[in-house]
Amino acid sequence: MKQYLTVDEWSIIEEGFHPHYNQISESVFSLGNGRMGQRANFEEAFTGETLQGNYVAGVYYPDKTRVGWWKNGYPEYFAKVLNAANWIGIDVKVAGETLDLNQSEVLDFRRELNMREGWLERTFTAQLASGKQVRVASKRFTSIVDDEVGAIRYSITPLNFSGTLTLTPYVDADIMNADSNYDEKFWNEVLQDAQANEGYVIAETKKTFFHVCTGQKFVVTQNGQEIQVDATPEERTKFIASTFKVAVQEGQEIVLYKYAANISSENHPKEALIENTKKVLVSAVGKGFEQMLQEQAAAWAAKWEESDIMIEGDATAQQGIRFNIFQLNQTYTGEDERLNIGPKGFTGEKYGGTTYWDTEAYCLPFYLATADPQVARNLLVYRYKHLQKAIENAEKLGFTGGAALYPMVTINGEECHNEWEITFEEIHRNGAIAHAIYDYIRYTGDDSYLAEYGLEVLVGISRFWAQRVNWSAAKNQYVMLGVTGPNEYENNVNNNWYTSTIATWTLEYTLKALQHVQSTDAARYQELVQKMNLNVEEETGKWQHVIDNMYYAEDQELGIFLQQDGFLDKEQTLVKDLPAEDRPLNQKWSWDRILRSVFIKQADVLQGIYLFEDRYDLDTIRRNYDFYEPRTVHESSLSPCVHAILAAKLGDEERAYEFYLRTARLDLDDYNNDTEDGCHITSMAGTWMSVVQGFGGMRVRDNQLHFNPFIPSGWTSYSFKIRFCGHLLNIKVTKESVTIENQAEKAIKLNVFDQPQTIEANSKGEFAHQLV
Amino acid sequence: MKQYLTVDEWSIIEEGFHPHYNQISESVFSLGNGRMGQRANFEEAFTGETLQGNYVAGVYYPDKTRVGWWKNGYPEYFAKVLNAANWIGIDVKVAGETLDLNQSEVLDFRRELNMREGWLERTFTAQLASGKQVRVASKRFTSIVDDEVGAIRYSITPLNFSGTLTLTPYVDADIMNADSNYDEKFWNEVLQDAQANEGYVIAETKKTFFHVCTGQKFVVTQNGQEIQVDATPEERTKFIASTFKVAVQEGQEIVLYKYAANISSENHPKEALIENTKKVLVSAVGKGFEQMLQEQAAAWAAKWEESDIMIEGDATAQQGIRFNIFQLNQTYTGEDERLNIGPKGFTGEKYGGTTYWDTEAYCLPFYLATADPQVARNLLVYRYKHLQKAIENAEKLGFTGGAALYPMVTINGEECHNEWEITFEEIHRNGAIAHAIYDYIRYTGDDSYLAEYGLEVLVGISRFWAQRVNWSAAKNQYVMLGVTGPNEYENNVNNNWYTSTIATWTLEYTLKALQHVQSTDAARYQELVQKMNLNVEEETGKWQHVIDNMYYAEDQELGIFLQQDGFLDKEQTLVKDLPAEDRPLNQKWSWDRILRSVFIKQADVLQGIYLFEDRYDLDTIRRNYDFYEPRTVHESSLSPCVHAILAAKLGDEERAYEFYLRTARLDLDDYNNDTEDGCHITSMAGTWMSVVQGFGGMRVRDNQLHFNPFIPSGWTSYSFKIRFCGHLLNIKVTKESVTIENQAEKAIKLNVFDQPQTIEANSKGEFAHQLV
Repeated sequence: MKQYLTVDEWSIIEEGFHPHYNQISESVFSLGNGRMGQRANFEEAFTGETLQGNYVAGVYYPDKTRVGWWKNGYPEYFAKVLNAANWIGIDVKVAGETLDLNQSEVLDFRRELNMREGWLERTFTAQLASGKQVRVASKRFTSIVDDEVGAIRYSITPLNFSGTLTLTPYVDADIMNADSNYDEKFWNEVLQDAQANEGYVIAETKKTFFHVCTGQKFVVTQNGQEIQVDATPEERTKFIASTFKVAVQEGQEIVLYKYAANISSENHPKEALIENTKKVLVSAVGKGFEQMLQEQAAAWAAKWEESDIMIEGDATAQQGIRFNIFQLNQTYTGEDERLNIGPKGFTGEKYGGTTYWDTEAYCLPFYLATADPQVARNLLVYRYKHLQKAIENAEKLGFTGGAALYPMVTINGEECHNEWEITFEEIHRNGAIAHAIYDYIRYTGDDSYLAEYGLEVLVGISRFWAQRVNWSAAKNQYVMLGVTGPNEYENNVNNNWYTSTIATWTLEYTLKALQHVQSTDAARYQELVQKMNLNVEEETGKWQHVIDNMYYAEDQELGIFLQQDGFLDKEQTLVKDLPAEDRPLNQKWSWDRILRSVFIKQADVLQGIYLFEDRYDLDTIRRNYDFYEPRTVHESSLSPCVHAILAAKLGDEERAYEFYLRTARLDLDDYNNDTEDGCHITSMAGTWMSVVQGFGGMRVRDNQLHFNPFIPSGWTSYSFKIRFCGHLLNIKVTKESVTIENQAEKAIKLNVFDQPQTIEANSKGEFAHQLV
Repeated sequence: MKQYLTVDEWSIIEEGFHPHYNQISESVFSLGNGRMGQRANFEEAFTGETLQGNYVAGVYYPDKTRVGWWKNGYPEYFAKVLNAANWIGIDVKVAGETLDLNQSEVLDFRRELNMREGWLERTFTAQLASGKQVRVASKRFTSIVDDEVGAIRYSITPLNFSGTLTLTPYVDADIMNADSNYDEKFWNEVLQDAQANEGYVIAETKKTFFHVCTGQKFVVTQNGQEIQVDATPEERTKFIASTFKVAVQEGQEIVLYKYAANISSENHPKEALIENTKKVLVSAVGKGFEQMLQEQAAAWAAKWEESDIMIEGDATAQQGIRFNIFQLNQTYTGEDERLNIGPKGFTGEKYGGTTYWDTEAYCLPFYLATADPQVARNLLVYRYKHLQKAIENAEKLGFTGGAALYPMVTINGEECHNEWEITFEEIHRNGAIAHAIYDYIRYTGDDSYLAEYGLEVLVGISRFWAQRVNWSAAKNQYVMLGVTGPNEYENNVNNNWYTSTIATWTLEYTLKALQHVQSTDAARYQELVQKMNLNVEEETGKWQHVIDNMYYAEDQELGIFLQQDGFLDKEQTLVKDLPAEDRPLNQKWSWDRILRSVFIKQADVLQGIYLFEDRYDLDTIRRNYDFYEPRTVHESSLSPCVHAILAAKLGDEERAYEFYLRTARLDLDDYNNDTEDGCHITSMAGTWMSVVQGFGGMRVRDNQLHFNPFIPSGWTSYSFKIRFCGHLLNIKVTKESVTIENQAEKAIKLNVFDQPQTIEANSKGEFAHQLV
């Protein structure tokens, strides 16, 4: 845990230079706009510890996989988002001496990520080896208005000398992914074109043949006046630069405005890349840095208007939750159904920028509540577009007849992951993808989605479940053998309760969905039945038979669902009895020891209870929570949020808050010593869930919103905004009451503390806390 | 399956050149002497498909491992036997034109591995591109008398021209392992020294710093007369050569006698390597090729005298079983306790030349029966010397107090394998190592081994088992969770019956062994108790408690032992119902599908019944056999032998013979399409077991031999020799009777067809077959 960042409600601030935390800061201070993302690397040269990173959404490379022992069915490639051209680069020479903070004395240093307006600023004074001092102020952003453009204002002022500054803004596409499996570069040269004040590099990904054109254009001012510089262009393989010199007086400020664009063949014809890059840059230069920055601030203000959570009385918590919301909004904007949410977003390379079940299980609720329904819908359409690949994936594993198994890890719909116990067995992901369709429809009311896209996905997944179970003659029931549940500290277990539960839930929901489409759009239903080659009677009959005859692991005596068969054969020790030096288990214990133990990585049975809580009475929930939580080590950042929500439901406000704290500042405080790899983007959505569903007690039930809020004892108030079926609500919780403001033009019926309420259009309702 | 080799009772013969099978032939025709082994590569240049291979026993390299996803507890290195200097190389130029069978027309070609005398001969006539024809006869062996020496007689005769032959005998140590994980070379240069008629290369293994000196010395004759040649020496990195020219007339034979030595720092001081290599070579040249060859033939005759199996009436079977015995004797001679038996011996690189449980479970019975007890004993001492490493290995996994887990794969006692389900979970190997001690003692009568070495190993392993089980409050018994049994088509199962059974067997045997040592050598007992820090009362009390309260998976209704908990939940299909195109499963099915299925890779429950058959009545054995065999796909070459033995015991002679056939000619017929990687050395011992224990019905029970032989219907007779407790017996089985010849100087009591018999010294007993 590192607490070197300043607490501020709207900004992340580093005061003073922390070179050893630089890679952490590079992750935390990352900028992104859904289309591209840039780690907080320095513009000028830096020979210290750094992971240079610019990631362009949708541009990936199938890196040859690395395995120890090959298993039949493994994919040969791991698709990963590429580290792309460095577009921020500006080499600076001070009277011939390279400016490099690793070689200079840093007299002062400040870095700020302004979340309210969406920009990064860095100011410092450096004394070079020669004794010359310069003051630098660099401000930049990746525009969410012009989402292919990034802009930098780089200001440099000599403090104790007059002399020549040499500046070289450049674009370098000769980049290697830090996580390249065989230390190979993934980019081939296409062309480079350097002019006096602009330049362009097109590089091509090997194998996938994406073209990305990265261009730069710049303007220079001296003492606030634009000056013409006589820049010398330079071209090398996958590299362009323009170098110019300016004579400056002590105290005179030189500002380089660098505009850069990353334009990919995903969105433009290859032959028009240069031309379109030029257009985009001409337009950016035309607007100018300051206007772009104003537009950026306005666009972010609109985002905050929809998605902010305000916490009074706890600035640390305020900063934490805003950081999470900011990063989620930087990562995914929902404008492009081909894109998704990598566990690290654009802040690092780990996990390859690929899609996991995190998206459906954790991220979807955030985007559903805080953005236009189209945003969440595109996350669903992403999976719809991958349905054929999921069917092929299942075929590889021996399934037939249109059964679909979505990959554990993917960019383009193909499986990337090679661990048999995960790739082949952690199949509950299929359930999360089905459940996301249900969640989307109940939250938005958009049930036309079923006929358009959803039903096909549901049928593919249901076909998979129906084949994946087998009839046990011994039990006279269906069983589900050889699975890995959400708790990845168990592998290849039989009858994981969560997986079996979400499997039969999928079958039930698919049957309902079929009926719904049949009854609302008979023609489309017929069309789909034909398209899917669905033998309605036989297949739905089998599904119903599975639903009716499924075996679920349970223990009657304890009154709990069993995580899997044989769970009670384990030595029943508790987390509180673990020696501190044994934690975290995944670093201290061998894998077999972890597997044999009762200890649970993340919510598993409780994940199911969270998803389907309306099926269970409070006592059942409590018995399971009381059994499983003390055995859970929460060694996944996705674990605490579910526990926070259940603890809140069970009235344990203290523990709910404790769980919330575990992830709220995970990256800001580098809790797990791994933020240098990138931020935990998907778990940030879990933190949001802890507040809204945990503290706010928000649920959707019978097509209505329900709130059962409490307020953590250290807070004065908190408020959050949500959309729901076309409404926009602002919920504020104080010590005394809950105020719900309906900002929409129509009344809403909802439930507060289990009492039905109606709030008229553009009005508020205030409700006192209930004494428990 | 490929049947391109000629059937012959004593030789393996390839008539005609089969370039596409060349890598298979290179494996099959391999030579070895326990100290070094050489694939059947050509001496002269060959640009066709080849895997050049010379392997020097005990010289290994810890190659950096390759894994997909790291698990805590994995070793970082995979130790592998190195591909060492090419000592056979002789470049040949015919009037300036390189002799290369891949570039020549091969007019005739014959290759013979003479197993009776232990040599390899290759003769061919080649027509070069120029039209020149040469006749070549090359004969070579790796001496089992002078086990650091190999000798070659390379004869070349121009058939249709007179001219100059240029010959370049060389040593090339600039070799790369084909299985190098990162395409790295494992050898560093030390020195090279080339003289006119001799030369030496010393190369050093990276990291392990073994030095190996490979030297050559040669003599040339023309028309049978030794001639002096004016050879030009050449030295390059890790390479020496001497080149000379001879003018030859059409029909004149030039013979190059090349003597080579591989001498390693495992057996010689580094500073004396050159000197000792020279000595060895001077001695070899002194003896001369022909005398060395005679000594070789005599030494092999002695080996055959002890270990031959003769089959009359089936030359194919005769060749097959001799090939197996020959390869086993080429691989391991038992002279060096630091050496062991790699699954491929010296015939290829796959599995890294490392030691598996194959040694104890399959190879030990062969060496026990066919060689001096010292040979088998050294296999045991090998493990004794690794006890400390096994304790450290267990500590890495969280075990304490001297618990020992022997590695799954090793050369030097350290674990090499990185698959969690194998490395950490296939722990039954520990039981096989304990059982080998029991097997050795009951077979040789050498119970002093316990006090000397055995007890410490048994205690280490018992301590492991006692910690590896845990008390199940649910079952009120001890359970063994998270294991992989011998059937590797199941991973991470609970209560694998075989593992639990061999675990408690180990505890029982260790308790007996403690009592035995205490009662026979109280002083040594005290010494060992102290050395092992054994808390006798507490530890043996715990062991007894585990023995008394162990849970074993069983099904009362079917009357069978259950391979593991939940086995009957699987879909109970049989191998006979599998479509042919689905076989072998390990190539056709995804791993999860294999895991979920009932299908068994190799004997698992039946392995336990084989080892402990005296515990079970015939009905129990039959019920288990009848249940498990039809579910077994025998996709390990180690599987059929156990089934052959059990089928024989159950009176199913036809199936016993069928199982025998599956492995008897596995490599000769390249049954599994993988002989090019090397021969299946350890499974060859299983074939021997099929004959001796299966057909011969040989058992040791109550310190006596038992025989219940039958003869496969197609055979006229078969006979095998075995040692037992200082006796030497020759057992011959014909259609009519069994004749047992006692070749020792003392009488032996034994049992034939369950009747006690005494056979006097140097006499025979003949016993008619029993009608069943």
